Amino acid sequence: MAVSKCARLSGASIGDLLDSVDSVLFDCDGVIWRGDQAIPGAPEVINSLKKGGKRVFFVTNNSTKTRKMYADKLGKLGFNAREDEVFGTAYCSAVYLKTVCKLDGKVYLIGSNAMRQELETMGIQAVGVGPDHISGVQNDWANVPLDPEVKAVLVGFDEHFSYAKLNRALQYLCNPECQFVGTNTDTRLPLEGDKAVPGTGCLLKAVETAAQRQAQVVGKPSSFMFKCVASQFVLDPNKCLMVGDRLDTDIMLGSSCGLKTLLTLTGVSTIADVEAHQRSGCPIRQEMVPDYYVDSIAEILPALQG
Amino acid sequence: MAVSKCARLSGASIGDLLDSVDSVLFDCDGVIWRGDQAIPGAPEVINSLKKGGKRVFFVTNNSTKTRKMYADKLGKLGFNAREDEVFGTAYCSAVYLKTVCKLDGKVYLIGSNAMRQELETMGIQAVGVGPDHISGVQNDWANVPLDPEVKAVLVGFDEHFSYAKLNRALQYLCNPECQFVGTNTDTRLPLEGDKAVPGTGCLLKAVETAAQRQAQVVGKPSSFMFKCVASQFVLDPNKCLMVGDRLDTDIMLGSSCGLKTLLTLTGVSTIADVEAHQRSGCPIRQEMVPDYYVDSIAEILPALQG
Repeated sequence: MAVSKCARLSGASIGDLLDSVDSVLFDCDGVIWRGDQAIPGAPEVINSLKKGGKRVFFVTNNSTKTRKMYADKLGKLGFNAREDEVFGTAYCSAVYLKTVCKLDGKVYLIGSNAMRQELETMGIQAVGVGPDHISGVQNDWANVPLDPEVKAVLVGFDEHFSYAKLNRALQYLCNPECQFVGTNTDTRLPLEGDKAVPGTGCLLKAVETAAQRQAQVVGKPSSFMFKCVASQFVLDPNKCLMVGDRLDTDIMLGSSCGLKTLLTLTGVSTIADVEAHQRSGCPIRQEMVPDYYVDSIAEILPALQG
Repeated sequence: MAVSKCARLSGASIGDLLDSVDSVLFDCDGVIWRGDQAIPGAPEVINSLKKGGKRVFFVTNNSTKTRKMYADKLGKLGFNAREDEVFGTAYCSAVYLKTVCKLDGKVYLIGSNAMRQELETMGIQAVGVGPDHISGVQNDWANVPLDPEVKAVLVGFDEHFSYAKLNRALQYLCNPECQFVGTNTDTRLPLEGDKAVPGTGCLLKAVETAAQRQAQVVGKPSSFMFKCVASQFVLDPNKCLMVGDRLDTDIMLGSSCGLKTLLTLTGVSTIADVEAHQRSGCPIRQEMVPDYYVDSIAEILPALQG
């Protein structure tokens, strides 16, 4: 495979690229919206792609929303989108536990209500959602009551993460037969104004350190995220374009699954980041170099309307 | 330096070893006590060593107690011990912030009341102790009110560890001038019956992951723990014996500071662990091989009473 060049996408090359694919996978935050605002032109891009016969999917590591919540948000922001086109890690983790782990039991969930809902939709019961504060003396902590039906620990984003939850996860994971899954390893959630708050990766690292085990990770760059879409919609990787703002998740997923990749500069990663990977000489970092880049996905609109 | 052999200490070799040192540093949990019970014979060993003119120190990574709390516990269990012989990471972290970091400001403390007390004794004000639960919406979290006088984040054991604390630490540490110190990296606190609960290392890993920075670590195997004792009591490393139950903390500290090392098998590490390090061929792991081992420190009692 030739080394990716990260060409600026413009003029006729936009149409050529779009002609070569039948499906486009978009990351969400930093790509089609930022926080609660659509990226200007993004709804038109997605709606025009669909009108032109492309299949469009929304592939996000964010675990705080159900597919339905995402479809509602997309609709409100002017995107023409269906629930079954949304692949967030709340949903994909439930699919993973069901189809890959073949889980037969409950989940101890460090995560949100949305995650619990997606698990329940898949017929999986979850315990642990909501606040959990430590109580009693240290010698009691190791004997905290456990649900004998729990056969997996799932770690996603949880604003109620606590020492008590960390300890409960450790006690479950001391059983080597208890499965251990994480939604994603993003270390920070970027917010407006160069601000950030801790991401799921921090919580997962704490649990992995306590359990002295590594979690199976569902989210990008794990190829499961693409397999999850591909298995439901029969996708040919060669005819897919992955569009994202992060080199280490979106572009890495695309490269490792054989998709065409497009970086948009409305989010986390910069051209300087790309150049650092190019210069590194490290094969893994080379995989984070996208085929193309744009300043914003709005730049592909003229080619769609032409 | 010759490769350590991990010889079983017995008979005349006990007296020879003790004759060759003037100071003995003991780890506490798993060495002189387990939980709230003295290891049988341990008080007699320590009291006899002192009677015979040896200096004895108690060097522990546990950050949940002040020197005074340790001296009280030692006294209750029958050990003849003074407060100034105790070097726990609550105390040593305060010394570190004062003497190495030359801190001029407050500390944001993820830790216990005992840690706050040791900091205050050293004239350092700490904020953050006690429960802290997340509130408001995600966009507020990055704008959580910060104390402008905080110039360091210190992470020790904290049963109230929470997402809110993790986030607050991240916001402080976004300032590259804010110093970042951890008491220790132990991943688990071992309890009776092969049970364990998460240790400070899990909390520190979460904060390091969020901050994308590595903490300066005070506790064993960091040589600061020995330097802290040595600077107050003028110790010659060649004439010191480090006694511990953990290869990766106690024995590693001893080896790297040039002390003689003795593993006792009443705690975490086993002879199988030693053998694995010996076989590894890895220079760092070789440093975790002790000079000697005993089943219990009670085995050195006859030599002291002879």
